[in-house]
Amino acid sequence: MHVSLVQLAKPVLHGYFRSSCSWRVRIAFALKGVEFDQVPVNLIKDGGQQLAVIQYIDETRPGPRLLPADPKKRAQVRMISDLIASGIQPLQNLYVIQKMGAEKMQWAQHFIDRGFRALEPILKETSGTYCVDDEISMADICLVPQVYNAERFKVDLEKYPTIKRLNQTLREIEAFRVSHPSCQPDTPEELRG
Amino acid sequence: MHVSLVQLAKPVLHGYFRSSCSWRVRIAFALKGVEFDQVPVNLIKDGGQQLAVIQYIDETRPGPRLLPADPKKRAQVRMISDLIASGIQPLQNLYVIQKMGAEKMQWAQHFIDRGFRALEPILKETSGTYCVDDEISMADICLVPQVYNAERFKVDLEKYPTIKRLNQTLREIEAFRVSHPSCQPDTPEELRG
Repeated sequence: MHVSLVQLAKPVLHGYFRSSCSWRVRIAFALKGVEFDQVPVNLIKDGGQQLAVIQYIDETRPGPRLLPADPKKRAQVRMISDLIASGIQPLQNLYVIQKMGAEKMQWAQHFIDRGFRALEPILKETSGTYCVDDEISMADICLVPQVYNAERFKVDLEKYPTIKRLNQTLREIEAFRVSHPSCQPDTPEELRG
Repeated sequence: MHVSLVQLAKPVLHGYFRSSCSWRVRIAFALKGVEFDQVPVNLIKDGGQQLAVIQYIDETRPGPRLLPADPKKRAQVRMISDLIASGIQPLQNLYVIQKMGAEKMQWAQHFIDRGFRALEPILKETSGTYCVDDEISMADICLVPQVYNAERFKVDLEKYPTIKRLNQTLREIEAFRVSHPSCQPDTPEELRG
């Protein structure tokens, strides 16, 4: 995933319909009401960078804040985001999974379960309607694509009632719906829904 | 790794001498001139969170900025930091490496090399004396522990002249020296240097 960082031009997202990284940025743009172009890239370049892009969008574009003004809440948002984007997602992204061969399902489930066990009690403390209180933030942007991956790898979400509840609330929101992998320019016909 | 987030009290770093996550936070505290207590924890909890802590420190403490004021440079700092903290470190941390058994050296080398191949041309563009221009930033805080891990896993640094040069410059700086794993309260005697 790559995003052109020219500040005032219409941004171009070079991404992949199913990549968590691309998806997070799509949600951020949708929440901010920023129009952008998408250039599908089949070579998936994962490896961080999405949080840098999201915070850059937040700092340079009007629209709802994706990080709260209060430093302590900002830290909570970043901790939840980092736990997902550094602690879970890199261990079950396509590149790593492909290296695991026959064990890939078991590997992905293991690391998602391990991450969700850490995440559930944190979200139980911090959440209101959304991950941190009642404002949508970067933490929510990170959560929804991760839960989608958990479902793909058949992780039992009943063990994580807070994660499950937040995901159900978030996926109804317009910015999350329009950015879903099922309706992107490069989504294959059989995955559209 | 866990850091108490009480804003005005003396912070307590619950960490591990060799964990990259703990080390990054130690460097940030040293750069800011913030005194803190360390409580060694042998159970290593990796998984992100260190960048949240570093940005929280930056937003709530005086001292040199760890993120530049300019949004574009901030994005560069965060991209480099995320590339390391999400794209490389989680794939070669102790927990993952232990799961790989006999293949652990090869696995770690593979992912560090892959990450450094992406990082080297970025740093060639962005660096001055340090990772982004001539100010020390969160990117430098992330780089030094990652190069230490590369050396532990015998990655050939000659292929990455910019990474090598930056690391050589940074490791001479007081804040980086005092926070090095070789001189922490829980460093075993045989690893002190």
